[in-house]
Amino acid sequence: MPMSKALVIGVAGGALKPGTVHRRDPRPDDVLIHISHVGICHSDIHQGHDDWGGSIFPMVPGHEIVGTIAAVGSSVRDFAAGDRVGVGCLVDSCGGCENCKLDEEPFCLKGNIHTYNAVGYDGEPTYGGYSSSIVVRDSFVLKIPDSLPSETAAPLLCCGITAYSALRKWQVGPGKRVAIIGMGGLGHVAVKLAHSFGAEVTVLSQSLSKKDDGIRLGADRFLATGDPATFARLANTFDVILNTVSADISLETYLPLLRLDGALVTLGVGIPATSMLAPLLLRGRKTVTGSLFGGLRETQEMLDFCGAHGIGAEVEVIKAADVNNAWRRVVNGDVRYRFVLDVSTL
Amino acid sequence: MPMSKALVIGVAGGALKPGTVHRRDPRPDDVLIHISHVGICHSDIHQGHDDWGGSIFPMVPGHEIVGTIAAVGSSVRDFAAGDRVGVGCLVDSCGGCENCKLDEEPFCLKGNIHTYNAVGYDGEPTYGGYSSSIVVRDSFVLKIPDSLPSETAAPLLCCGITAYSALRKWQVGPGKRVAIIGMGGLGHVAVKLAHSFGAEVTVLSQSLSKKDDGIRLGADRFLATGDPATFARLANTFDVILNTVSADISLETYLPLLRLDGALVTLGVGIPATSMLAPLLLRGRKTVTGSLFGGLRETQEMLDFCGAHGIGAEVEVIKAADVNNAWRRVVNGDVRYRFVLDVSTL
Repeated sequence: MPMSKALVIGVAGGALKPGTVHRRDPRPDDVLIHISHVGICHSDIHQGHDDWGGSIFPMVPGHEIVGTIAAVGSSVRDFAAGDRVGVGCLVDSCGGCENCKLDEEPFCLKGNIHTYNAVGYDGEPTYGGYSSSIVVRDSFVLKIPDSLPSETAAPLLCCGITAYSALRKWQVGPGKRVAIIGMGGLGHVAVKLAHSFGAEVTVLSQSLSKKDDGIRLGADRFLATGDPATFARLANTFDVILNTVSADISLETYLPLLRLDGALVTLGVGIPATSMLAPLLLRGRKTVTGSLFGGLRETQEMLDFCGAHGIGAEVEVIKAADVNNAWRRVVNGDVRYRFVLDVSTL
Repeated sequence: MPMSKALVIGVAGGALKPGTVHRRDPRPDDVLIHISHVGICHSDIHQGHDDWGGSIFPMVPGHEIVGTIAAVGSSVRDFAAGDRVGVGCLVDSCGGCENCKLDEEPFCLKGNIHTYNAVGYDGEPTYGGYSSSIVVRDSFVLKIPDSLPSETAAPLLCCGITAYSALRKWQVGPGKRVAIIGMGGLGHVAVKLAHSFGAEVTVLSQSLSKKDDGIRLGADRFLATGDPATFARLANTFDVILNTVSADISLETYLPLLRLDGALVTLGVGIPATSMLAPLLLRGRKTVTGSLFGGLRETQEMLDFCGAHGIGAEVEVIKAADVNNAWRRVVNGDVRYRFVLDVSTL
């Protein structure tokens, strides 16, 4: 049973400390990956702090993984040693339910297996990518296009596909006006993608502090939500509003900005109660909906699109010794726009 | 200025009493209609009781109007005296905004003019169809197919188009499973239409008291929401849930019944607050949305469809002397499934 160096959290809210983790002996359909880079997602911190309950410790976080294949099992056909590959939020799903058959593994009805902080179908805990290697079933491994540097590709495996999947499903493209609430890790990739899809892109951010970056990444407008005039001038403007923040947003404030048949698509969890929901929806036939990350097929499509269009995340690469400080900075919103751990420093 | 007999409410909550109302002198683009039948919609009662605030008195309710054209203005081309026609929820809209240009007059950005309890662009109050005649701009007049009796066609002008528009927008048809919450005036037409569109139709009603009717109207299943087992067995079942009731429904109860990408479409106003909205939407990429009645083009399409398929409302025709009692019975849910006033009894 191979061992892997890793950054491990022993208890909820504890520090990440260097350690080791067992990886399973590769099965015939498994791929052994030597990890080079892993993105730091805010959800790593939530799970490390057990903010959502049910976290499993010890924990090795990380689901934005890029590395190189070191070995493949006997039945693996699509990959070979030396291939540069990625692993995202999932490492397994049932494959047989109606959603899996539609390549919608995030919505597996049996219950899919997350890359870390989960228990696999074999009963063993899963450990993520803050680690020097990982063993993953081949059908959950993605090819990284040659044109994408590993460090800017890694965050695409979670925040990239989450933005991509929502924008595609809601047909954000030429002739469409999209607002993106928040320009953090998720939001900044959403801006790049929506612009690349040909939509007119407006960023709605708390302040104008990221305005220059926003315009550089492809936004047509960058407006401050702290200014009440922003909302008055934007009434009946957008086909889609993509909410990328986890702080609460007010449906009463945002739904009037949608045009007829417009959709507010939340990727965060911050929609508070409103007793006025139905009237808000009826007036203008508006929609409130949510979206998660995409399935494997769509994730590969996203990577190929990003490869063809030179789209990667804006990243700050850190060493293993800096990871706990990086987590603090993520909590404080002090990152432009994604930390990526150089796994060779483990 | 022509006079019209009418049933008039003088004050909020007062009784409907026989009276008269002025109709405007027909303009070049107007049609004078002698009304034969008018449906009794629950919203008539809400407005007569000023439940929603802002009601204008004296009031003549009624927006499910069928009658015969008595005269047309000089510029009217599409209608002639003797034509059997209908008028629904609207008698005017701006015609120039982006929504009107899409034939989506219910969502006119300038503000459309409702058939009663409104003030027209000329500053005059509008009076509805509990009345022997009405003068309406030609572009807000609909043709009634010869195959539809007037009394069963009248309710189609509000509850028919409301159900039709939502079912069409959410693509309820062959291979789709739709649940219809409530089988009242709106719900019973929704059952007929959804069945006619080729969908698999489930009615979710408080009890099984209307089950035989539901099956007769086209439902494949009729289940009682009073039975908790109903919800357990229906998890992950429906592509669309159409809420036709105005009582509160619980998103926590109904969203789990939707399949991936399913939509809960409310036609009522009863969606109470939930702090759990976003997580409910994210799991399964579900949608909550609302729908109103449709525009004029779609309303004519609906009437033509109903004419071709022999679909009308199930009605109980009443005399003018019975109208106040009929309102009480609507409030008590004691109608199968729509009262229609025989206007000749005024």
